[in-house]
Amino acid sequence: MDIAALREKNPDHWMKAAAIRALTLDAVAAANSGHSGMPMGMADVATVLYEKHLKFDAAHPQWPDRDRFILSAGHGSMLIYSLLHLVGDAQVTLDQVKNFRQMGALTAGHPENFLLDAVETTTGPLGQGIANAVGFAMAEEMQRAQYGKKVVDHHTYVIAGDGCLMEGISQEAIGLAGRHQLGKLVVFWDNNNITIDGTVDLSDRTNQVQRFKASGWHVQEIDGHDPEAIDAAITAAKKTKKPSMIACKTHIALGHAAQDTSKGHGALTDADQMKAAKAQYGWTTGPFEVPADIKAQWEAIGARGATDRTAWEERFAGLSQQKQDRFNRAYALDAPKRLSATIKALKKQVSEDQPKVATRKSSEMALEVINPIMPETVGGSADLTGSNNTKTGDLGMFDTDNRKGRYVYWGIREHGMAAAMNGMALHGGVRPYSGTFFCFTDYARPSMRLAALMKIPTVFVMTHDSIGVGEDGPTHQPVEHLAICRATPNTYVFRPADTVETAEAWEIALTSKDTPSVMALTRQNLPTVRTEHKLANLTAKGAYVLAEAEGKRQVILMATGSEVETALAARDLLQAQGIGTRVVSMPCMELFAEQDEAYRRKVLPAGAVRVGIEAAVRQGWDQWLLGERAKPGKSDFVGMDRFGASAPAGELFAKFGITAQHVADKAQALLG
Amino acid sequence: MDIAALREKNPDHWMKAAAIRALTLDAVAAANSGHSGMPMGMADVATVLYEKHLKFDAAHPQWPDRDRFILSAGHGSMLIYSLLHLVGDAQVTLDQVKNFRQMGALTAGHPENFLLDAVETTTGPLGQGIANAVGFAMAEEMQRAQYGKKVVDHHTYVIAGDGCLMEGISQEAIGLAGRHQLGKLVVFWDNNNITIDGTVDLSDRTNQVQRFKASGWHVQEIDGHDPEAIDAAITAAKKTKKPSMIACKTHIALGHAAQDTSKGHGALTDADQMKAAKAQYGWTTGPFEVPADIKAQWEAIGARGATDRTAWEERFAGLSQQKQDRFNRAYALDAPKRLSATIKALKKQVSEDQPKVATRKSSEMALEVINPIMPETVGGSADLTGSNNTKTGDLGMFDTDNRKGRYVYWGIREHGMAAAMNGMALHGGVRPYSGTFFCFTDYARPSMRLAALMKIPTVFVMTHDSIGVGEDGPTHQPVEHLAICRATPNTYVFRPADTVETAEAWEIALTSKDTPSVMALTRQNLPTVRTEHKLANLTAKGAYVLAEAEGKRQVILMATGSEVETALAARDLLQAQGIGTRVVSMPCMELFAEQDEAYRRKVLPAGAVRVGIEAAVRQGWDQWLLGERAKPGKSDFVGMDRFGASAPAGELFAKFGITAQHVADKAQALLG
Repeated sequence: MDIAALREKNPDHWMKAAAIRALTLDAVAAANSGHSGMPMGMADVATVLYEKHLKFDAAHPQWPDRDRFILSAGHGSMLIYSLLHLVGDAQVTLDQVKNFRQMGALTAGHPENFLLDAVETTTGPLGQGIANAVGFAMAEEMQRAQYGKKVVDHHTYVIAGDGCLMEGISQEAIGLAGRHQLGKLVVFWDNNNITIDGTVDLSDRTNQVQRFKASGWHVQEIDGHDPEAIDAAITAAKKTKKPSMIACKTHIALGHAAQDTSKGHGALTDADQMKAAKAQYGWTTGPFEVPADIKAQWEAIGARGATDRTAWEERFAGLSQQKQDRFNRAYALDAPKRLSATIKALKKQVSEDQPKVATRKSSEMALEVINPIMPETVGGSADLTGSNNTKTGDLGMFDTDNRKGRYVYWGIREHGMAAAMNGMALHGGVRPYSGTFFCFTDYARPSMRLAALMKIPTVFVMTHDSIGVGEDGPTHQPVEHLAICRATPNTYVFRPADTVETAEAWEIALTSKDTPSVMALTRQNLPTVRTEHKLANLTAKGAYVLAEAEGKRQVILMATGSEVETALAARDLLQAQGIGTRVVSMPCMELFAEQDEAYRRKVLPAGAVRVGIEAAVRQGWDQWLLGERAKPGKSDFVGMDRFGASAPAGELFAKFGITAQHVADKAQALLG
Repeated sequence: MDIAALREKNPDHWMKAAAIRALTLDAVAAANSGHSGMPMGMADVATVLYEKHLKFDAAHPQWPDRDRFILSAGHGSMLIYSLLHLVGDAQVTLDQVKNFRQMGALTAGHPENFLLDAVETTTGPLGQGIANAVGFAMAEEMQRAQYGKKVVDHHTYVIAGDGCLMEGISQEAIGLAGRHQLGKLVVFWDNNNITIDGTVDLSDRTNQVQRFKASGWHVQEIDGHDPEAIDAAITAAKKTKKPSMIACKTHIALGHAAQDTSKGHGALTDADQMKAAKAQYGWTTGPFEVPADIKAQWEAIGARGATDRTAWEERFAGLSQQKQDRFNRAYALDAPKRLSATIKALKKQVSEDQPKVATRKSSEMALEVINPIMPETVGGSADLTGSNNTKTGDLGMFDTDNRKGRYVYWGIREHGMAAAMNGMALHGGVRPYSGTFFCFTDYARPSMRLAALMKIPTVFVMTHDSIGVGEDGPTHQPVEHLAICRATPNTYVFRPADTVETAEAWEIALTSKDTPSVMALTRQNLPTVRTEHKLANLTAKGAYVLAEAEGKRQVILMATGSEVETALAARDLLQAQGIGTRVVSMPCMELFAEQDEAYRRKVLPAGAVRVGIEAAVRQGWDQWLLGERAKPGKSDFVGMDRFGASAPAGELFAKFGITAQHVADKAQALLG
């Protein structure tokens, strides 16, 4: 690259972009860790975007109608930290930049939404950002349809690298954005032809332009170091009604000895090479020093949106009070006041009617009363609408001609769905829930983990939660997935036993502000076990005594979901023999673990033998079976220790010994 | 569709295909479960493929040079069962067809490779089959380069549906096949425009033809019910040097009242509608009855390959004895005899040299001695070659002009990589291992589960296995992934503590015939803890006493991987205070659980207090801390109970309390 020519052609632009490059070099060198090359390559695109297009106000990073900027190539985190520092973000001080990747710094290795207000989403695992962005753009369309473009009218910009585009999830995102013609989504592809292992050609020769066009995108190809071309491309992208991809030909680690090499992808820390690069840039100040005039120009960019924002506030104030309240309530993730009473009413009704339905149907019954009073909910399914029971009558299908639709047909795209749901939740104003089969948690897993890490209340509705799936066989029968979800920090895993518990689980999930929920629901019908109406949300305790022992308590049976019925039947067998048996329903282990010792002791007192029952692997159960005052050697577990099989569900439960008789036998054997 | 016209035009073909349709209808109706529409839609394609192209001998379903047929749209399992029954497969008797999806039947809900010899791979989770197929085709190229096309020269055929193509993994597969110009891979796309939720248009408008072309595929579009067009397309696909996609316009549930609807996707069981469909087909026999002449025609197809096979056997016999032995040994998954001595020699050397290296480097050291003596190994990485340490000097890069290359640059495609590795293992003749960061197990998870379910010894090399990752932060720091892998049945999860244990783990992984292995390896350097050479593979016991208590044994510390060093240091602290402390290294919990009670008691005797140490969540540890003769209330765990953070690794271990001092303090607290 002829850096001198670039400098001369657009000196003002050049120095603003050079500030990003210099800060990146300095911060990565100080940390002796990180990725220098990407911010150095994409500095020009980012500079033009921030200077001329991005609607934002650095002093109010969470202004709802801001444009969203998503760094899908999250390893280039110094790009976003440089930008935020330069525009005057209150959190990203120079000290923070100097402490890049150090203990306690807000400038973490990869951008983290829960550390910095101006970071829209946590990226790093590749392909997530571009798929989050689909959710952001969908949420914008939905909100715009509901509140009008005077208060909701913003773009979602994404920087994605070759890694993002090679990950399969990108195809799911591209397909969704194309299908829904998300015209306010603009993706910059950092087309630098370099991956960690070498040139892209080592592993891929896909024509990305053709690929995006195949899914209905507007595509442009530009020189990613030409500010005029960048500006023109963004202008064109904003005009088209299609989602836009701008292929930006860039040089990774521009101007550095490692330019255009895979070495340039990583941490560039050689002092002489840094000096030489800065000399090329015409950057003469010391480490972390941004000349005052350049900083001032950047701060002016950061302040540029203040007028827009105040004008927006006036327009927002023009909405009816009801609309303002609804908007603010949804952004604050506050559930409507009526939710609690609505859930209680459903519980009361159900405890009287005692329907025998699958909990996936119970979930639908809950949603039927919730959705009408929570206009912020957005439902969907990965092509299993009739199986997941996620669509209620009032939602309407989200489509190009029905942006008010609150139900998304995600297609066979569990991963893209989960990531887009996260994007919706992060955008704000909507509460996404969507479903697939519990076994296909596997496909959505990277995004489910990120929901937990990002502290967002995405709800994953996972039906067909055990061998109860039946004839579809082991590929479709989860056995380890409850353990997987429970192993993940900050995740509520609900496995309700009936409609009452399901309604309670929904109440918790929809009032959660910073924890995602997994609803593990049955395919097969279950009886109502909560036949006595209680106002209190017992599921919120995680576990509770569902049936007390008659006579001396000798046995405690603990179960979740469909196995609560089994536990109750086993209790009948044991009580018939005069063996006092308590049944504990345990719909959410995480919440039970959060209870105080006194409550846990009340539910799981010492003395009795214990049997845990769950049509899944034992992992995760030992804390209740062996810990918590359990008698040594006096506990057992009835569940799965292998993959399932293909056969009618009832036969499978018998084959694998998940029966009341087997439970009763185990309890008796423990009693000796 | 004008079924009558189809019948008249090609009556012989028609009746053969009708046999598939009729058997499908009957079997699904008998099971009252399954998917009728797909086999009915793709029967013509399958019939032409089997009759005119597929190289196979029904009497020898595992003949190594057969063409591979993969039903990626695995829910259409009755297609494959019908075909196998019709051609005279010994396993798929009429009784098996009648027992479709029933307890104990080989005709499981989805095709399972471990039940039927002629089923190449287990499908059902969508997109897996097409990605497996990439591995099959790569393995074929590799074997052909090694043994010559006289003994290895076959195609891989795939039927994929819209679901397969919407799943992100398909893009990874398409990109890989295009990059490597896998000319012997032929994918039939069942272009029926129907998904479970409705028409494809509900969720996708991607131009699939353009999409495949963008990745360098040869694409044809045909009427999937026209046998001549199908024949011509397959002939053309076999000629091109590119991977081929044949878009077959089909009608789901052809000829049935549910044709072209999403209802047609599922189980069609209405007796009158079945009757009407069969009448349209001109199918007049009763349920499960195939007219003798039609069965005979199909059996002739099944026998057609016998000549090819015997000719192949003669050609194979012409190979040098050494080559024959190597070929047979690799297909039998027998490790070379020298492997054991080679591992022992490395262990001896290492216990003398006592290198302080990361276990990812230890793994490379093991591979450096293994790869030269195991020509069947194939290594790779998802764009982290230098980090995963999976490439040894002798492998060579697999490429279009170097099919002998044994190292694959998979690109940023963890999922496609894992599925293609499975395909390689299923193909036979090669032993695949490849790497990514342990945290990105998440991306590969659906295929890792299938490796376990399919009983194949794929090796997943997962480096950067804890907060030891350091500055990259929580998105890159696994905490729950050991628990996830351990929760999965039939999976060995190795977390070796040093080079000796790593070499032992490799020996187990490469002699395993039916269990996949996960190698969880550190980024950071670790000391050699196995300083005393032992011939026996101690890792094969799962856990063993690494350091015995001096004096009375009061404490047992159990640890894996990098925390074994911590345990040894804690032991020093405790012993310095006169507290006798045993250290148990536990590189593989699954293998330890398999040992007999006597051995487990020897390693974990009653009496002492116990502390488990692992930089990960506790889930999975309680069986050793609370069970196995543990003293009630006298156990503790030092590990992670939340996500990690961004900082240098040493600081993170201190922050999260994973230190020798903390371990010693906990042990002392337990002693009281």
